[in-house]
Amino acid sequence: MQTIETLIHARWVIPVEPTETILENHAIAIHDGRILNILPSAQASATYQAETTHQLDEQALIPGLVNSHTHAAMSLLRGLADDLPLMEWLNEHIWPAEREWVSSEFVHDGVQLAVAEMLRSGTTCFNDMYFFPDITAHAASAAGIRAVVGLIVIDFPTAWAADADEYLHKGIEVHDRFRSNPLISCAFAPHAPYTVSDEPLERIRTWADELDLPIHIHLHETESEVTAALEKEGRRPLQRLAELGLLSPRLVAVHMTRLEAEEIEQLATCGGHVVHCPESNLKLASGFCPVQKLLDAGINVALGTDGAASNNDLDMLGEMRSAALLAKAVAGQPGAIPAGTALRMATLGGARALGLEEQIGSLVPGKAADIVAIDLGGIETRPVYHPLSQLVYAAGREHVTDVWVAGRHLLKERTLTTLDEQAILDRTAQWQSRICINA
Amino acid sequence: MQTIETLIHARWVIPVEPTETILENHAIAIHDGRILNILPSAQASATYQAETTHQLDEQALIPGLVNSHTHAAMSLLRGLADDLPLMEWLNEHIWPAEREWVSSEFVHDGVQLAVAEMLRSGTTCFNDMYFFPDITAHAASAAGIRAVVGLIVIDFPTAWAADADEYLHKGIEVHDRFRSNPLISCAFAPHAPYTVSDEPLERIRTWADELDLPIHIHLHETESEVTAALEKEGRRPLQRLAELGLLSPRLVAVHMTRLEAEEIEQLATCGGHVVHCPESNLKLASGFCPVQKLLDAGINVALGTDGAASNNDLDMLGEMRSAALLAKAVAGQPGAIPAGTALRMATLGGARALGLEEQIGSLVPGKAADIVAIDLGGIETRPVYHPLSQLVYAAGREHVTDVWVAGRHLLKERTLTTLDEQAILDRTAQWQSRICINA
Repeated sequence: MQTIETLIHARWVIPVEPTETILENHAIAIHDGRILNILPSAQASATYQAETTHQLDEQALIPGLVNSHTHAAMSLLRGLADDLPLMEWLNEHIWPAEREWVSSEFVHDGVQLAVAEMLRSGTTCFNDMYFFPDITAHAASAAGIRAVVGLIVIDFPTAWAADADEYLHKGIEVHDRFRSNPLISCAFAPHAPYTVSDEPLERIRTWADELDLPIHIHLHETESEVTAALEKEGRRPLQRLAELGLLSPRLVAVHMTRLEAEEIEQLATCGGHVVHCPESNLKLASGFCPVQKLLDAGINVALGTDGAASNNDLDMLGEMRSAALLAKAVAGQPGAIPAGTALRMATLGGARALGLEEQIGSLVPGKAADIVAIDLGGIETRPVYHPLSQLVYAAGREHVTDVWVAGRHLLKERTLTTLDEQAILDRTAQWQSRICINA
Repeated sequence: MQTIETLIHARWVIPVEPTETILENHAIAIHDGRILNILPSAQASATYQAETTHQLDEQALIPGLVNSHTHAAMSLLRGLADDLPLMEWLNEHIWPAEREWVSSEFVHDGVQLAVAEMLRSGTTCFNDMYFFPDITAHAASAAGIRAVVGLIVIDFPTAWAADADEYLHKGIEVHDRFRSNPLISCAFAPHAPYTVSDEPLERIRTWADELDLPIHIHLHETESEVTAALEKEGRRPLQRLAELGLLSPRLVAVHMTRLEAEEIEQLATCGGHVVHCPESNLKLASGFCPVQKLLDAGINVALGTDGAASNNDLDMLGEMRSAALLAKAVAGQPGAIPAGTALRMATLGGARALGLEEQIGSLVPGKAADIVAIDLGGIETRPVYHPLSQLVYAAGREHVTDVWVAGRHLLKERTLTTLDEQAILDRTAQWQSRICINA
């Protein structure tokens, strides 16, 4: 008998790799925070002596969900201004509130609220874009969740930095400070083509190459973004990025609701990634990302919730379902984005976009033990003819019972083990009072 | 002090009438199954002596949700065949399974599973279309939920009836048997224009007038339905119904993803109702119902989940959110279907479509006490800047804590009081084994 840390027996294991595989009555053996083996339960019991054993008779185990685009701290602004167009929402509500309130304290408390929500809904890694990325990295790491923190760059001054130079300088500091933290990695995060000028984009291109980092950017989110760029400079934003040398496998392009056929080809050729945020795109009436066409062209597509101010949740299970449902109607094909593809986008697709596919994104020996258990045994998810289908089309965030990140049990029978839920709610209530009074 | 049955104090009451109203720290006084009064909590405590008092400090009370189109018993087929086009799904999977399995026992067990799910997610009334409507009525009534059972008519024989004559005859018997049951009402339910011929449709028109019943029908669900009708008989299905005299305020037209401008006018003129089923329309790639245009034309729009075989849940809170999100992208206006309008469609819109607007659909003295309490105090729904927005965009089915129908407490702190959850799960598992083996 081999002694290991943890053995999780489950009714089903859906590893994502190989595609469409569903293992019944299997166990995952975990040691040193990594997946050691996946094997039939009976065999596992005969092979391993585990310090901790879990018996999850109604659950499916899946790789931890990767939220590939969010602004975690904005959870404190959830529902502040709904049912408004993107630019009005940004200019008249979100940016004024941010100017007034964003601080290291705001980011800390907002990220804790967001991480609590993400863990409770099966997200084990998030790709963030916001101010005070050092605080985000600290809060994520302390909670035990994996994060890719965006080294944000934007042309206008904020509480975090005064100009492009300072954004970049502070960003590099954050990168250096967290480089040995196994849960934290960094991406450059120029906000959007319409808010970042050429010079910082060129520096980002160079430094991203040197430091081997992704470049996380909002791109072609709305028709008006594209139209305004055409009017102003006679080219579409993607073309500008191409001319600046930013089209590469480092590109993590978020939204992409406006794409011409040649642009899809261009993206496929350069190896860039798209992060699809269906609920945010619907809510802000930004448009429809042609997901099936992107996949057909061989482009890697990840999923993101966007921030809670424009969604209004950080629920990747819900986002996966929305992505699968919406893609069918957009493609006019009920077979578009079947359940297995949706799950792959929400896991391995995200890992690939973030350059973490060697570490996470599927349940494979050697990868980190980032694992989520989802109960399919209740009223909402019975009968179970096809567990993968049930997971995507019927299960909800409330069915997530347990979450492990790097083998650490962060959600245990729906209780957070590293975060104090009541303290988070109390601080959220304090922020609400302050922001309400001044809104 | 006036003695009453129940007094529910809540943090918020969202009555739907008047529109956009949010009452803080109010109470609903209930007697004889009806809403007696809605008034500030302090005043309520001074006025009423209640047999049962509830103090819901984190909850919003809303009118019970009205699921205006479902096939409850099909919950036993949830997830049997996903990611397929409508006609292939019907012809090769659903109809064969139904031919093999549908019986009074199947309908009883399927309806119990569906009612358990609906109550747990805040639905207090459902408009059903399925075989054995007598069994559906019995099961609903026994569980204490309100139902409009469809007196189904379809040209082909099933376990329920052999031909149009028998469908109609048995339907009328069901209507007569349940006419004194306060929870049950009936609607004629000709399945769809492509499955019901002229003669039974004409009889339905006459009898619906005589008995004062709605006519519940799938209509313009897909492009191919419309195209096939044009090819076969040179007119669109709506035109055929018009010529048969079915366009009236009795018409409850489900789906309506294909509508020309004149058809919208025609519907508005006749006073017919549309039931929008956004998730089913997306999943089957049926198309996009132009909801904002329908509302702009003055047409009453209700919401439905459709059956769990094509959704795959009966979650009206989720459907309301999907409807609000999708309408914005379809209209190209982020202000389309704001939160208050979505809630109105899911409550009063349904009540109006079903001819029940004097009884249910809003929290107004004199109406039935069909009330749902939703907890907005947790991680997923905090902060609460606008309770109505939070309810639609952030809350989920799991936040439904309590449900009353006609003043009867059917879900009590998330426990069903009239249904045995374990027994339902056991019977569901038995059906799954039987259907799986023979699938």
